[in-house]
Amino acid sequence: MKLTRRHALAGAAAITAAPLLPPLQAKAAAPMADKQAPSFYRYKVGDIQVTVVSDGRSTFKLEDSFITNAKKEEVNAALEKAFLPKDVFTIHFAPLVINTGGKLVVIDTGNGPVAKTNSKGANGLFGENMVAAGFDPKAVDMVVISHFHGDHVNGLLTADGTPAFPNAEVLVPATEWKFWMDDGEMSRAPAGRMQGLFKNNRNVFEAGLKKKVTPYEWGKEVAPGLLAVDTIGHTPGHTSYVLSSGSGKVYIQSDVTNNPNPFATNPGWHAFFDQDAEMAEKTRRRVYDMVVAEKLQVQGFHYPFPGLGHIVKDGAGYQVIPAPWNPVI
Amino acid sequence: MKLTRRHALAGAAAITAAPLLPPLQAKAAAPMADKQAPSFYRYKVGDIQVTVVSDGRSTFKLEDSFITNAKKEEVNAALEKAFLPKDVFTIHFAPLVINTGGKLVVIDTGNGPVAKTNSKGANGLFGENMVAAGFDPKAVDMVVISHFHGDHVNGLLTADGTPAFPNAEVLVPATEWKFWMDDGEMSRAPAGRMQGLFKNNRNVFEAGLKKKVTPYEWGKEVAPGLLAVDTIGHTPGHTSYVLSSGSGKVYIQSDVTNNPNPFATNPGWHAFFDQDAEMAEKTRRRVYDMVVAEKLQVQGFHYPFPGLGHIVKDGAGYQVIPAPWNPVI
Repeated sequence: MKLTRRHALAGAAAITAAPLLPPLQAKAAAPMADKQAPSFYRYKVGDIQVTVVSDGRSTFKLEDSFITNAKKEEVNAALEKAFLPKDVFTIHFAPLVINTGGKLVVIDTGNGPVAKTNSKGANGLFGENMVAAGFDPKAVDMVVISHFHGDHVNGLLTADGTPAFPNAEVLVPATEWKFWMDDGEMSRAPAGRMQGLFKNNRNVFEAGLKKKVTPYEWGKEVAPGLLAVDTIGHTPGHTSYVLSSGSGKVYIQSDVTNNPNPFATNPGWHAFFDQDAEMAEKTRRRVYDMVVAEKLQVQGFHYPFPGLGHIVKDGAGYQVIPAPWNPVI
Repeated sequence: MKLTRRHALAGAAAITAAPLLPPLQAKAAAPMADKQAPSFYRYKVGDIQVTVVSDGRSTFKLEDSFITNAKKEEVNAALEKAFLPKDVFTIHFAPLVINTGGKLVVIDTGNGPVAKTNSKGANGLFGENMVAAGFDPKAVDMVVISHFHGDHVNGLLTADGTPAFPNAEVLVPATEWKFWMDDGEMSRAPAGRMQGLFKNNRNVFEAGLKKKVTPYEWGKEVAPGLLAVDTIGHTPGHTSYVLSSGSGKVYIQSDVTNNPNPFATNPGWHAFFDQDAEMAEKTRRRVYDMVVAEKLQVQGFHYPFPGLGHIVKDGAGYQVIPAPWNPVI
């Protein structure tokens, strides 16, 4: 039928020829693409330009221990309600590149090149997506770190352990720096994950950066227009930001929640990765009630890319309403 | 303070030098980017690969006549509830490129190169975003048109009026073809917008394509895995599609709603662009009740990019839950 129509359109006479032969104008089938679009997205906050640059994602099996105060069936029900697959959990990662006009500022750095190899390209993509977005790592003036987990700090180093942003000042929360660099805290930390975090931070900041960092305090601008605010709980020095320019404002939440499904929809759920889960919940409710009341745009490191949206109250929890993608700037 | 810190880090001694001088290692500020990311997005439906390719957006002043059965204040309230700006309305456009493995199929073609010039690059971007996504227009085997409005058909032609997909069969809904090519219908059509549509369609399909099209019927596959379904009302032959492969399925809704805010949230609102608004509403409620019941993924031409999501009932209307962006495929 299709063959006949095509021949008819081409004006071919021999439509009675064996229909199992390929059409006369046979073309090779187009190859399947093997890569997603380079995942970056730009928007303006007043005179400031923000580029969200995806570091990729990590998908893993949902363990009973993932959320300490909810049963796996409850988590699966929340995932299903959000049209997400059951029995697995996906974390998204989205560092930012902010051009203030005078300074090029990176906030958080993703999982880094070693993770890119280990994950077979599922994450550790910040470096290549940043270059796809037109940024030269050498042109970065400041790297601002929200907290000392590997998905935020490991991209500070190249695959051979040297600084990935060789001309940038690296700014770290003073409280976070003090905690992870304290030998007493390290010696008292439980074996396993916490010891691993201490070791990773010593590797990144001592071996890699030779301690060349600038600690910053909450309540002050760490870069032009970028106010650091205390959102502790997830880690002892966990930091969020208010980025302002003119009448533009966005709340950069860092890890106040992880993936909003299920952690914004169920703000009382305690994930294993929140170091002080009670405090993290208290912070989460305080911040989300504030952004709801002030109708503030929120940028979430672990929201699905591009991670910009507004928050609404939804029953006992919150829902993220993603901002519509602007195909031009 | 910043200057002092940088000098201290660099080990410079002369920190008492005039603080109004630029830092010793002064660098040029990074230039602001002038373009959004090329807006395309890939996902799989079974063995089929779909690439959503943005054609851009159109933003215009909200007129009283935009929705015939709702007041401007009501529309503004709906926009505000969705955190969208008041007094303006933004339409997004997202044609598809579908690789079935054997055929490269385009569904709808965007506003075209003339609109790109007229809109100063706000829309008419399908061509350049498609090339950015790695597709050669000459490799397209089939172009499937959902209905005969300019934002769907004008991209069939290049700026000089020749076929933009020179090797493609162009498939059009038989009912739509009959209506817009009927001289009697054209002569009876009201002046203004409807006459303009008739003229535009004659230009595209007669002058441009020399009527080389293949009409297709509802209830049949127009391309491998692509079933055409009747969703009339928006136009007399308006068509949607069910794309299936293996256990994968997505409902390609075309213009069953325009932007889901406010047209999914308020399914009873009648926009001026629905030719038979009563029928369009009936179709809208039938389709949305079906995709809710079957939990079908929906791809919307006028949803904000990338336009893939699920639908939930929300009060008297519906809400689109966008699918999370997958940064790898």
